[in-house]
Amino acid sequence: MPRKLKNIELNRLSPEAFKNAQKTPMVLVLDDIRSMSNVGSLFRSADAFRVEKLYLCGITGKPPHKEIRKTALGAEETVAWEAADSVITCVENLKKEGYKILALEQTTQSIDIREFKSVEKALALILGNEVDGVNQEVIDRCDAVLEIPQYGTKHSFNVAVSGGIALWELLSRQLP
Amino acid sequence: MPRKLKNIELNRLSPEAFKNAQKTPMVLVLDDIRSMSNVGSLFRSADAFRVEKLYLCGITGKPPHKEIRKTALGAEETVAWEAADSVITCVENLKKEGYKILALEQTTQSIDIREFKSVEKALALILGNEVDGVNQEVIDRCDAVLEIPQYGTKHSFNVAVSGGIALWELLSRQLP
Repeated sequence: MPRKLKNIELNRLSPEAFKNAQKTPMVLVLDDIRSMSNVGSLFRSADAFRVEKLYLCGITGKPPHKEIRKTALGAEETVAWEAADSVITCVENLKKEGYKILALEQTTQSIDIREFKSVEKALALILGNEVDGVNQEVIDRCDAVLEIPQYGTKHSFNVAVSGGIALWELLSRQLP
Repeated sequence: MPRKLKNIELNRLSPEAFKNAQKTPMVLVLDDIRSMSNVGSLFRSADAFRVEKLYLCGITGKPPHKEIRKTALGAEETVAWEAADSVITCVENLKKEGYKILALEQTTQSIDIREFKSVEKALALILGNEVDGVNQEVIDRCDAVLEIPQYGTKHSFNVAVSGGIALWELLSRQLP
């Protein structure tokens, strides 16, 4: 019978080992994410996929914050992050550093995320506000816009869920 | 330039059309999920993937509830659901109805979700409590236990995120 593993048996990295471990060549840019729960949850997913860094732009909440901690469970202390007042400046800097700039958004020219193939080394994935999505001025600066196909009545997933799905879809075939 | 689509341009199903649309042969079983936000978020993902039904077991919150609505955004009215006091009875009934019973959990015999292939028509995916995961007595009744590989310091993803990733991984290659 399968037995549930105790936390200690999962052999996760220590915070120290995580700091020194090779990261996935991917950063997340959070563009005006309002909910601290979503920010915390994205930190936790970023930890699981060894994302390089989170850029917390505009009104996006920043650690330390009780509500972020409640869903990040400490991942806000393992994953590198940086606050950026202007998402535009942040994205332009990432572009100069050689990142391919991707937004997760439903636009006139979005690519089904299943079809997206990148040979580029480093990706920057932008996730937007819970109601308004990624700002249009940010979309204008993207190399590609990706979309998760949806078949129901609602317009979108919760942003922490769509971020998790996108990370998984972009990374899972190259993870060990 | 890619232009963001207005909600109306997304051409989502109306609640009436959703009710009549063919569903994905997949149900979710929520085993003692404590957070109403997580329940609501799972309703929303279930709507997006046209999941047949949600079984809300044990202490899992049930609609109508303000906190569920806040994250489900109405998906709790489009996706079919049923309350079940006993998750064991629920799972045994689903097994009798021909569902293949899967839990998302880290156990001594979990299968990497990327490796799981099913030819069965209908799947029942069990998601567990935020702290304690899926109950061991439920694990004992599963046909297979699936795991999303993780590479960081934390023990798990947020359950709404892992549910979203699992639905995507199990369904995305067979969705149009």
